[in-house]
Amino acid sequence: MGIVGFGTVGQATADIIQQHADLIEWRSGVRLAVTAVCRRSGVALEHVPTGARSVFDWKQLVHSNDIDVLVETMGGTGEALHLLRSALANGKPVVTANKNLLAEHGDELFATAVSRNLPIGFEASVAGGIPILRVIHESTAGDRLRAVHGILNGTANYILTQMESRGIEFDQALAEAQAAGFAEADPSFDIDGLDARDKLCILARMSFGGRLSVSRIPTYGIRTVRAIDIHSADRLESTIRLVGSAEQTKDGLEVSVRPWLVGRRSMLAKVEGVNNAVFLVGDKIGTQMFYGRGAGGDATGAAVVSDLVEIARDLASGQMSAKRVSGFLDTKHLEICQKPRAVSWYLRLTVKDQRGIVARVAEVIAREDINIDSLEQEPHMPKDRLSFVITVEPVSEPTIRKAVDEINAFDFMVEPVLLLRIE
Amino acid sequence: MGIVGFGTVGQATADIIQQHADLIEWRSGVRLAVTAVCRRSGVALEHVPTGARSVFDWKQLVHSNDIDVLVETMGGTGEALHLLRSALANGKPVVTANKNLLAEHGDELFATAVSRNLPIGFEASVAGGIPILRVIHESTAGDRLRAVHGILNGTANYILTQMESRGIEFDQALAEAQAAGFAEADPSFDIDGLDARDKLCILARMSFGGRLSVSRIPTYGIRTVRAIDIHSADRLESTIRLVGSAEQTKDGLEVSVRPWLVGRRSMLAKVEGVNNAVFLVGDKIGTQMFYGRGAGGDATGAAVVSDLVEIARDLASGQMSAKRVSGFLDTKHLEICQKPRAVSWYLRLTVKDQRGIVARVAEVIAREDINIDSLEQEPHMPKDRLSFVITVEPVSEPTIRKAVDEINAFDFMVEPVLLLRIE
Repeated sequence: MGIVGFGTVGQATADIIQQHADLIEWRSGVRLAVTAVCRRSGVALEHVPTGARSVFDWKQLVHSNDIDVLVETMGGTGEALHLLRSALANGKPVVTANKNLLAEHGDELFATAVSRNLPIGFEASVAGGIPILRVIHESTAGDRLRAVHGILNGTANYILTQMESRGIEFDQALAEAQAAGFAEADPSFDIDGLDARDKLCILARMSFGGRLSVSRIPTYGIRTVRAIDIHSADRLESTIRLVGSAEQTKDGLEVSVRPWLVGRRSMLAKVEGVNNAVFLVGDKIGTQMFYGRGAGGDATGAAVVSDLVEIARDLASGQMSAKRVSGFLDTKHLEICQKPRAVSWYLRLTVKDQRGIVARVAEVIAREDINIDSLEQEPHMPKDRLSFVITVEPVSEPTIRKAVDEINAFDFMVEPVLLLRIE
Repeated sequence: MGIVGFGTVGQATADIIQQHADLIEWRSGVRLAVTAVCRRSGVALEHVPTGARSVFDWKQLVHSNDIDVLVETMGGTGEALHLLRSALANGKPVVTANKNLLAEHGDELFATAVSRNLPIGFEASVAGGIPILRVIHESTAGDRLRAVHGILNGTANYILTQMESRGIEFDQALAEAQAAGFAEADPSFDIDGLDARDKLCILARMSFGGRLSVSRIPTYGIRTVRAIDIHSADRLESTIRLVGSAEQTKDGLEVSVRPWLVGRRSMLAKVEGVNNAVFLVGDKIGTQMFYGRGAGGDATGAAVVSDLVEIARDLASGQMSAKRVSGFLDTKHLEICQKPRAVSWYLRLTVKDQRGIVARVAEVIAREDINIDSLEQEPHMPKDRLSFVITVEPVSEPTIRKAVDEINAFDFMVEPVLLLRIE
């Protein structure tokens, strides 16, 4: 096989194949070998796997006879898309960890895979080492799935759990995550929920079948979560997690990526650091939860290798076919629910203190027919930047958003309301 | 297909196939149909699936041309073994939920399956609806697994969590579980750890490869756990779980089924009621956890159906083969570790009060060079049945057993020491 984009995941994949070749052969009956690696900037000689050649341009690999599978670990949607198109057109199966590519171009790529009877391995694209795509497709084959949700971004979860365990502010937690290599220099993809949105899109399509553009998934990140929110959550015996959630209701799909306030005893709260967790709910299986490392070279590389083993077996048997594509072939669009159900909400307001703020906010909330469940303003806060927290009884999102918009318009608001869904 | 042993799991399997035939076809490209059901005592007419016939003797099905797969849901190791042998001899794949059969006769059955190129589906045999066997075999194909452990028996877990949440005694919790249908009239298989032992045997062989007789797995149940232990665990910010654990160390396999004292914040403590959870630890994947319903017709039936879908695809492609058998074909025996590592322990003593008990117990413990970590005797206990609890710092099991044996020999002991491993 050839590995294109020889960064953390590509190298980890090569290392696993070299270290575990005998083990893989014993367990699966196939022997894997890396025959070429490719990186535009070149691969340092000491990193080139034994017996492999190193090239600068992946186009050299697409036509090679000694390459029967291509592994794409470049990322992005430019060159990577070009590579996948080209590999499939040349009859070569591919394995990719690229959620962004599949969320945006999955329809085209999977359709090509089907028309050419070629597998695309993409287990590594969602939740790193957690084999959630196999589980959805094979293990729940007999069940009707109702919901899929979870903690899908390890970087955001690392930042939230650092804020929680050490009482630090978001900015410090982000800077430390960047220094530790857990967050990119441009962290937007992780902390604004975009990465989780891509993964949720893939999970929802596999679980329910049908088209779903990422642009239709309401997405909120964690950039506006502050230490005061973690503190308030703690007072409510809760903590904060960034959750991607897709649920089939009788009125359509309720889908979003947003921060949730989750009870301290909840399974979601137990997911700490860079770990991921995915929950599946089905009519027959009930609720299942799958937990593990959501990122990192080793876990992601192990997922890539699991796909390579499967493809190698197909190659050996001479029977190749596209796999786990049913959710992507369905051309109907997943209908988004227009009447979302009522849930509880957490609102944190930051205001310049003046007389009558609570009364005016409470009046807005009452006007929308929303019941306040709790209200707390901590003592001894700076008058020019005073936070208070309101939790409300279940109402639908449009209703609470209407109230929030009205509150945001008040001149005493220092920054927009932070809105968290309560689990 | 034919379903033999048409009890809870068999009926649930038939129901899923009838209800979800279209869904299964959409997701997997195969259409399943139940053509016969079999129960020695007969199947009530209203339960016979549409289009299926009902027979009393499975031998009628083994030679039938309209049966291409046999589902065994009878249980036990007598007739079930006979059925599997006969089906495989007649070229029919089988699906079974029978952990007891596979733990005892797996070597023979899987060898036959390989020699005849026939699959045995056995996902339902371990942890009900949790697809742990697929995960071990396919998803961790590239990794070296180091440990597998978990809560493998839903009945025992239900009893422990009832004792915990309601403060009731073991006998009451068991009686209620029996009344609610969660425990058998003869509960030994569940509460004495035998069911968990069979499942652990299958998990360990699949994870590490090699022979492992169930008789070599030290097995302790929960029959001797009392309300006082749950209470003492709570004081230690912990609870009690029945855990099956297999871990590869440099000195061999450490394997056991026994009650553990687990911290309240631990993932194991979060597993409540009849749920199961399985943890896998691998060099590359790190720690993964899989959680869900461990028993019940629907969840187990869904696992049976996932195997049926896989076999139907093989039948359709004309390429059948034995699957997930590598761990059972390895003829070397898994070497049991003779030098188990030091872990912490919880000891609960129940004594007839007399002077000097604590001194004599403490002397035994000191003589074995064991350090006491905590000691608590609650006030106001009956003098003829007084409990106290000792926790000790890490020592190996042979060392703590030697001390426990000496303590058990004292004439003031009302019943043997309860020994729990501390997580």
